[in-house]
Amino acid sequence: MTVIYKRVALIGLGLIASSMAHAMRAYGLAGEIVGYARSPETRMVALDIGLCDRVCDTAAEAVADADLVVLAVPVGAMGPLAEEIGPYLMAGATVTDVGSVKQAVIAAVAPHVPKGVHFIAGHPLAGTEHSGPRSGFATLFQNRWWLLTPADDTDPVAIARLRSLCEGMGANVDTMDAPHHDLVLAVTSHTPHLIAYTMVGVADDLRRVTDSEVIRYSAAGFRDFTRIAASDPTMWRDVFLSNKEATLDILGRFTEELFALQRAIRLGDGDHLHAYFTRTRAIRRGIIEAGQDTSAPDFGRSTPAAAPAGN
Amino acid sequence: MTVIYKRVALIGLGLIASSMAHAMRAYGLAGEIVGYARSPETRMVALDIGLCDRVCDTAAEAVADADLVVLAVPVGAMGPLAEEIGPYLMAGATVTDVGSVKQAVIAAVAPHVPKGVHFIAGHPLAGTEHSGPRSGFATLFQNRWWLLTPADDTDPVAIARLRSLCEGMGANVDTMDAPHHDLVLAVTSHTPHLIAYTMVGVADDLRRVTDSEVIRYSAAGFRDFTRIAASDPTMWRDVFLSNKEATLDILGRFTEELFALQRAIRLGDGDHLHAYFTRTRAIRRGIIEAGQDTSAPDFGRSTPAAAPAGN
Repeated sequence: MTVIYKRVALIGLGLIASSMAHAMRAYGLAGEIVGYARSPETRMVALDIGLCDRVCDTAAEAVADADLVVLAVPVGAMGPLAEEIGPYLMAGATVTDVGSVKQAVIAAVAPHVPKGVHFIAGHPLAGTEHSGPRSGFATLFQNRWWLLTPADDTDPVAIARLRSLCEGMGANVDTMDAPHHDLVLAVTSHTPHLIAYTMVGVADDLRRVTDSEVIRYSAAGFRDFTRIAASDPTMWRDVFLSNKEATLDILGRFTEELFALQRAIRLGDGDHLHAYFTRTRAIRRGIIEAGQDTSAPDFGRSTPAAAPAGN
Repeated sequence: MTVIYKRVALIGLGLIASSMAHAMRAYGLAGEIVGYARSPETRMVALDIGLCDRVCDTAAEAVADADLVVLAVPVGAMGPLAEEIGPYLMAGATVTDVGSVKQAVIAAVAPHVPKGVHFIAGHPLAGTEHSGPRSGFATLFQNRWWLLTPADDTDPVAIARLRSLCEGMGANVDTMDAPHHDLVLAVTSHTPHLIAYTMVGVADDLRRVTDSEVIRYSAAGFRDFTRIAASDPTMWRDVFLSNKEATLDILGRFTEELFALQRAIRLGDGDHLHAYFTRTRAIRRGIIEAGQDTSAPDFGRSTPAAAPAGN
């Protein structure tokens, strides 16, 4: 239990910020936690559940005297927010963000960060399909990666301090440059999300299969897609618009591969399919060995303990 | 606890059959459970863990005097298996299968089922990414759907009896015609699996992103895809080859929709993306309300209880 920042300002009080509030409090990492959200309703909920020590009515007020400012708003809102708070940032403070895209956020935010304030862009690879101030929990970052993409000339002491905070909340920290981050995430997160959204949309459009059938018979497969496709629409719109180049690049490769498999199905080329599916299975093993998921059956979800209803 | 069949023969001892063995035993639904698998190693494991009351060396021996025979082999193996056991089926017995495709299985199996034996094709919508005789557990079918696709002239008493067995194992039972089943499953299961396999394959091919990066940073999104893409390669090869028409139909719609979203990203059409993502979110709510998944955060997986390592 070491206080790492005396005052942390959380701007935007969704899943990530509210989980940070719970985690920082649980592990005693912040002296005071100050919050702000644009929506009065969100601020009211935050007050109501005691999420922060203080909830402010403006972002400028929230960042005053904060030695850490966390921008936790959709990627598209980062620039205007940075412009608004820039003049109120304390000298020596650190500003970070939790956006899923890094090059676009850095381009939008950095120009508004005054000299003497450290800007270290970041991205915790953690989430659920829920959003809003009530969705946070203290263990969200436990054993998850938190990627930092600082500029080359960033003060190493400021980086080390932010790293301690992330590690204090249970995360593993890695640093990389922003363009590489955006490519890695296009593969591991952005394109999979777009694909899941698409598949769920197709099911919804298909009038020959009723909605209730799709919903009732959504055993493993589609069910996992709907979970991904339930993520926050505003956040994801901004991700795709601001990581356009890498996402389109990976999407191109994806459709190329998909057409090859589609052709194998049409031609009845079972060997091609079997070899492909065998190769992808090995990747899954790597993820379990890397500790990023469980090998428990039923996709890691708990099985009901009750006896069967029938008979 | 009512014995529904005096002797059940399980042919093929993978995830589904081994789960049936556990469930029938746990709920007292079968007088005797007899098993057979083509691989001597699988038979040995089944003996070793006491999965069945008896493990036979041939399928013909296993089905002798069984009043229920369950074909639980990959879809492509159903026809030859039915031909092999046809002459040994007991008059009045019921034959069912658990394949993910119904039209192709019916076409392959029905010709080998003698008059006086009831053939009722079926498909439990339950599974995990694990396979083999050790992967089964008694609650796999709990609150999951078991679809039966009997021919119009099937004996209703035989259908009701098989339905009781499925319900006794905790499943909800529905009947539909085979072509409709294959279309519904192409949407809810087969196409999602193909897409997940493809995405995981793309990640593996991408040399600019190292394997370890893909594995380390596989937070929500890609992680769910790898889970799906870890399913049994032989089973899935057979599914795609035998439900070719419906899968290619749905794949066509999928690529159409994907291209529309891709275009919206390229043109920066945020409204289109936001509206699409909002619509798909609603489907997820329907699935939770239908009781086919949990609304727990972190995608229903348990969060680690331990304190953070850092600090």
